[in-house]
Amino acid sequence: MQLTDLSTPTLILDRARLVTNLERMATRMRGLGVALRPHLKTAKSAEVAKLVMDHGAVGLTVSTVAEAAYFVESGFKDITYAVGFSADKLGRLVPLMEAGADITVIVDSQPAAYALIGAASPYDVTPKVLVEIDTGGRRGGLAPEDPAVIDIARLLHDAPDVAFAGVLTHAGHSYGCRSEAAIKAVAEEERHGVVQAAEALRQAGLPCPVVSVGSTPTAVFADDLTGVTEARPGVYMFGDIYQAMLGCCAVNDIAVSVMATVIGHRPDQDRVLIDAGALALSQDRGPDAFGAPLGLGQVCTLDGPVPLEGVRVLDAHQEHGFVGRPEGSTGPSVCGLLPIGTRVRVLPNHACMTAAQYTEYAVVDGGQAVVATWGRCSGW
Amino acid sequence: MQLTDLSTPTLILDRARLVTNLERMATRMRGLGVALRPHLKTAKSAEVAKLVMDHGAVGLTVSTVAEAAYFVESGFKDITYAVGFSADKLGRLVPLMEAGADITVIVDSQPAAYALIGAASPYDVTPKVLVEIDTGGRRGGLAPEDPAVIDIARLLHDAPDVAFAGVLTHAGHSYGCRSEAAIKAVAEEERHGVVQAAEALRQAGLPCPVVSVGSTPTAVFADDLTGVTEARPGVYMFGDIYQAMLGCCAVNDIAVSVMATVIGHRPDQDRVLIDAGALALSQDRGPDAFGAPLGLGQVCTLDGPVPLEGVRVLDAHQEHGFVGRPEGSTGPSVCGLLPIGTRVRVLPNHACMTAAQYTEYAVVDGGQAVVATWGRCSGW
Repeated sequence: MQLTDLSTPTLILDRARLVTNLERMATRMRGLGVALRPHLKTAKSAEVAKLVMDHGAVGLTVSTVAEAAYFVESGFKDITYAVGFSADKLGRLVPLMEAGADITVIVDSQPAAYALIGAASPYDVTPKVLVEIDTGGRRGGLAPEDPAVIDIARLLHDAPDVAFAGVLTHAGHSYGCRSEAAIKAVAEEERHGVVQAAEALRQAGLPCPVVSVGSTPTAVFADDLTGVTEARPGVYMFGDIYQAMLGCCAVNDIAVSVMATVIGHRPDQDRVLIDAGALALSQDRGPDAFGAPLGLGQVCTLDGPVPLEGVRVLDAHQEHGFVGRPEGSTGPSVCGLLPIGTRVRVLPNHACMTAAQYTEYAVVDGGQAVVATWGRCSGW
Repeated sequence: MQLTDLSTPTLILDRARLVTNLERMATRMRGLGVALRPHLKTAKSAEVAKLVMDHGAVGLTVSTVAEAAYFVESGFKDITYAVGFSADKLGRLVPLMEAGADITVIVDSQPAAYALIGAASPYDVTPKVLVEIDTGGRRGGLAPEDPAVIDIARLLHDAPDVAFAGVLTHAGHSYGCRSEAAIKAVAEEERHGVVQAAEALRQAGLPCPVVSVGSTPTAVFADDLTGVTEARPGVYMFGDIYQAMLGCCAVNDIAVSVMATVIGHRPDQDRVLIDAGALALSQDRGPDAFGAPLGLGQVCTLDGPVPLEGVRVLDAHQEHGFVGRPEGSTGPSVCGLLPIGTRVRVLPNHACMTAAQYTEYAVVDGGQAVVATWGRCSGW
């Protein structure tokens, strides 16, 4: 089967690029001496997770209980659910732990810790728990020096039905960096903050075996991860336009794309309509943060895919994408380049958001032959 | 079962509000003397489609081939696929027509018309075809006075394997209106343009039985639809924050919401984290077009839902929503209002985009008791 045999829009995964990306990160983490526990929130695929484990990962990170269940059912045993835990979800994790899975959750408040301890008490399984540390991302987590870190850790450590296991942070603010030097500085903030929290715990007489950092930009650019035990990058597997703009990958490393068909022309605006719109591509306009409106994805040829320079999905309705050149830029006529019926591929702004719209990948290996179909997990 | 028995995030549909919305639109269309062929791209649910048919609809409109297949399998027979048709999709529609479904597609160019005629020739089924007219929405479609309308219609009319059936338009620019008067003007533009195209076809000796208009705002505010045979509003079934800002519904008419749980506090910013982020809510920031940044949804109590005045999902990561008050606004402490573990409901900015992230609805009937679970169709 060839790509042209598939209906559009379809999510395409280039296995050759994926494997290159996995190898590069595995080598980096080995060099820095930390375990790799990749975040599967981007790929959400058992087949990708198998490749990740083949490339040196020690376990998985997930963003939903549905992912945890899917990966356990797919044979994976060691899973960290890295979103602040709400105790009412424990009932869904218990069967996974009863089936032999090793599940780690995170909390960053005493109410959440107490609720978790209470929820765990009726069960014969023992979830591991990390305390979430905020190293500048300003999402979840406590400041490294906050005495509540020690209070919550002690509470968890002393409770009979949970196992306190350490600290975790995510340097989400690395996405706001605009230079390699800035990302390196954030990586050091991330490392320093979480290691500081771990040291404070140890000085308070608590064990802290896990010291976990996350984010693809910091994993790509960190020079030193002393004191850190594991890293949880995720989007590095696929890359996307945002990661390319950050310098975390090249455009030609991007392993995932949306295949679409040209369904109409607007010669008055030199725009073409494709059948991949706001649902098929997502509405993520993250790259606009770099200063110029870049639309909803980079349009490429079907083969390659080779980027059509300056040709972007400028805007979208639910199932319509408007393809053209950003205002003020010039080049060959887009209607001329893309006759009605042409197949294109769109490199996503944000692979996590785009891939989440699909239930499977059409897998290619650098060409147009479809070599496999890989499932994905959806929902919560 | 009660809402609190469900895990979050979950998509909730209030049947009582839905039915009120369906009744209101059915009454309007009856009053204007046009058939109702509602767009199911928002609801994507056979149970909703059954209610729609119970409230006077003559058939359905869909936005994907997957929806067409799902609704035919669910027993619906008369379906218009209202996105510019790409002939390579015909093979997937043929089994539906062979099973007795009456499928209408749309084209707006000679290449698309020729491709459709060519694709249809091997089959014993006869798709109906409408020519898409642009009445100002500047998405797909030809200008009403464009001679190509007649050329394409004649081509389709004379072809052996397709049935030319009329004209269709969608006044998407009604979403850009900022007053009832402006929407009324767009509704008249929509009506006038598509009727003008129909008249031109009839003067050229071609039949034009279907004269189809669309969009919830124009359906809600049109004063006169003389010459129009059917209307295809969709989002009116659920309503959303954008529709409320347009004046097309009240906030208390909004029938769909996302139930979420408070998973963390940021007292330094008086923000609360919920477990509904960019995937659970979508990244649609449409209401910002009204002039103030309104974030990603209106936060409400679980019961009601009663809007918490000024409290919004300000921003989101993939699975984290940041809840607070927009900069410069004041009110009771959000952390105080929403302790960790609290359940909330979020009214979506754009119901189509939010609902698309889910595979089912937890259905309530004005209270917190879950009276049914209704499936949804996903993908393409």
